[in-house]
Amino acid sequence: MAEEAAVRAQADAVRRLKQDKADPDEIAKEVAKLLEMKAQLGEDEGKHKFVLKTPKGTRDYGPKQMAIRERAFNAIISCFKRHGAEVIDTPVFELKETLTGKYGEDSKLIYDLKDQGGELLSLRYDLTVPFARYLAMNKITNIKRYHIAKVYRRDNPAMTRGRYREFYQCDFDIAGQFDPMIPDAECLKIVHEILSDLQLGDFIIKVNDRRILDGMFAVCGVPDSKFRTICSSVDKLDKVPWEEVRSEMAVLLHQENEHVEEAVSVGSVAGGGRYDGLVGMFDPKGRKVPCVGVSIGIERIFSILEQRLEASEEKIRTTETQVLVASAQKKLLEERLKLISELWDGGIKAEMLYKKNPKLLNQLQYCEDTGIPLVAIVGEQELKDGVVKLRIVATREEVWPVAACHGGGGYVTLQTQWSFQQLL
Amino acid sequence: MAEEAAVRAQADAVRRLKQDKADPDEIAKEVAKLLEMKAQLGEDEGKHKFVLKTPKGTRDYGPKQMAIRERAFNAIISCFKRHGAEVIDTPVFELKETLTGKYGEDSKLIYDLKDQGGELLSLRYDLTVPFARYLAMNKITNIKRYHIAKVYRRDNPAMTRGRYREFYQCDFDIAGQFDPMIPDAECLKIVHEILSDLQLGDFIIKVNDRRILDGMFAVCGVPDSKFRTICSSVDKLDKVPWEEVRSEMAVLLHQENEHVEEAVSVGSVAGGGRYDGLVGMFDPKGRKVPCVGVSIGIERIFSILEQRLEASEEKIRTTETQVLVASAQKKLLEERLKLISELWDGGIKAEMLYKKNPKLLNQLQYCEDTGIPLVAIVGEQELKDGVVKLRIVATREEVWPVAACHGGGGYVTLQTQWSFQQLL
Repeated sequence: MAEEAAVRAQADAVRRLKQDKADPDEIAKEVAKLLEMKAQLGEDEGKHKFVLKTPKGTRDYGPKQMAIRERAFNAIISCFKRHGAEVIDTPVFELKETLTGKYGEDSKLIYDLKDQGGELLSLRYDLTVPFARYLAMNKITNIKRYHIAKVYRRDNPAMTRGRYREFYQCDFDIAGQFDPMIPDAECLKIVHEILSDLQLGDFIIKVNDRRILDGMFAVCGVPDSKFRTICSSVDKLDKVPWEEVRSEMAVLLHQENEHVEEAVSVGSVAGGGRYDGLVGMFDPKGRKVPCVGVSIGIERIFSILEQRLEASEEKIRTTETQVLVASAQKKLLEERLKLISELWDGGIKAEMLYKKNPKLLNQLQYCEDTGIPLVAIVGEQELKDGVVKLRIVATREEVWPVAACHGGGGYVTLQTQWSFQQLL
Repeated sequence: MAEEAAVRAQADAVRRLKQDKADPDEIAKEVAKLLEMKAQLGEDEGKHKFVLKTPKGTRDYGPKQMAIRERAFNAIISCFKRHGAEVIDTPVFELKETLTGKYGEDSKLIYDLKDQGGELLSLRYDLTVPFARYLAMNKITNIKRYHIAKVYRRDNPAMTRGRYREFYQCDFDIAGQFDPMIPDAECLKIVHEILSDLQLGDFIIKVNDRRILDGMFAVCGVPDSKFRTICSSVDKLDKVPWEEVRSEMAVLLHQENEHVEEAVSVGSVAGGGRYDGLVGMFDPKGRKVPCVGVSIGIERIFSILEQRLEASEEKIRTTETQVLVASAQKKLLEERLKLISELWDGGIKAEMLYKKNPKLLNQLQYCEDTGIPLVAIVGEQELKDGVVKLRIVATREEVWPVAACHGGGGYVTLQTQWSFQQLL
């Protein structure tokens, strides 16, 4: 680029002047010119073409989505805590070999990291295998924990139905040797509490024991090599009529090669069960830790909550700001900064416009737009009187001034803070 | 393995019996034997050798670490919300080209994903570039947001000093065209509030303007191509005496090839500044959105809090359980389940031991170990009287029974729930 060459030439000129021990004023002038040229160049940079998107099967969460997400997470975390669960976290990637042999045919959906030297790594596919690795690694034989984190699957995304390549799982698991069925029952209770709390409407919890199915298959003469495949077919009974599944089974049982169908899980928002053998697979001596747990698939729940919110036209707030610090006249920036600083230090959620001299109307409009319930107005007369005007935005009602000790300890005394909180 | 062959033989035997339409009882017997053998095999599986570790530079967070982490996050999130920030989230990986050209020499520290077909992806290196991509993609010119998430750098880890390859960043940024220095000042206020709130001891916030340095370099005659390198040297002035930095600079200015030293940031727990050009790099028309922000490096703060907690011998609770539902006699499992279910439904955090007939002593010991303050004891006499005994674990003081309407609406009425909460 011609501009870049010009900047380089100017830089050289500055260097020459410096080497020649030229007049300092002249050097300073040429340096200023150089900086100006550089700044100019900066502005013209970056007119490159970028593909502006998130990776396939992923999405950003904007403030509105985050507000919905927070509601759902709060319901889920409250339930987990109510049941006395501890919480853990594990890295987003594991050694590749930690995941190897845990997912059968689904292994092809695992995201591997590029070999950049060092260990071979993969993104976690679920939270269960990292949990088992954690237990074995730390020789923990007894824990009730939850773990809420993103997992990764190179699956065919169906984003409108809440199926993503990056998605949250909310897992609750109980590890340890206990009297039969007591922890299992708690897992069911948890799903019931969460789905009720989220008010998603009626739901059905299906309970099964895999050994019943195993026995049925064995009696039917299903060969060992076809167990997984036939299970996948049975999985489809939810969505496909029996006749179709039956003919698929017939074909499968006469095929030579295994071919595992992907189970399409539409409609299900939670799943779980026992995995008594998994921890033993990590323990050098094969010591087992019986585990049972449940996983809440939050993305589909988000989709439902999002759609419902849109339909309801409820206006969702994306901040928790309680008061806007505004001014009625010009040249009060410093006074606004003083007041807002005291509010922040007093634990009150406050905002102000980043303008030296904002119009009062614009400040009130900002409150209306963002749902801020109160506005504290600094004005010349109020400053003289040592008070602050406080107004309820919705009703325009003035609820202050109270005598705030401006000269003394600042605008906001403990007592006025208290009455402030009462208003909210 | 011989056992596997035996299972296969048994499976074949079952199949033959089935084909021969043998006696159903005989089939059932052989199937049972097959299942037994399979179960046996399952137990012997997995005596393989695994490397039981997390990837280099990463770590698990156990319940204790999570409790500390939650404290720090709460302080940080409260501050961000107090300042009226919205929150967003972005995927853990971006298109590789989104990160290209944003980190200079540090690009070598970016984790790439393996090319498994489809898009080329990289793990995010910070939260700033994804934020800029988000703004440009959604044509947002005005937002105050925070984002707390893990970022990834293939750096040399120094885990005892809180330097990891996977680590959290807590970012607060203000995007938009505003009157000068007002948003910048808020960023400084935020760092001040958070570091004060976390009580990490005295701290220094250093304020600088890069253009001052640029001007000094230009006056000194530093060639353009050496700007970044010399900046790295200056960065070291915190840790290395001036003489060393000076000689390094002398060498650099006489070298032909650029060589960027890695800046070692020990001791710093937050950093930030303006990046007015970054969003424009993503916009197809180069439209700029001025931004200023601050990033809290939480890992080092964790390390400090962790060490301090260990030194203080303060016992940190890892659950919030308020009451243990216990029984004084045998055969009261169902009664315990009934009571705990009512407590959960009433929003009370409750646990019970997963044993049919636990000893009272063990139940009380569990309370002591985990810090549960109350124990509700179900006994035969209490059942007859329609009451529950409630005891404060620390003092052994009995604070109930109150007349709970057992027959009517369950053990816990609204009124007793209230008095329950009062005890905690």
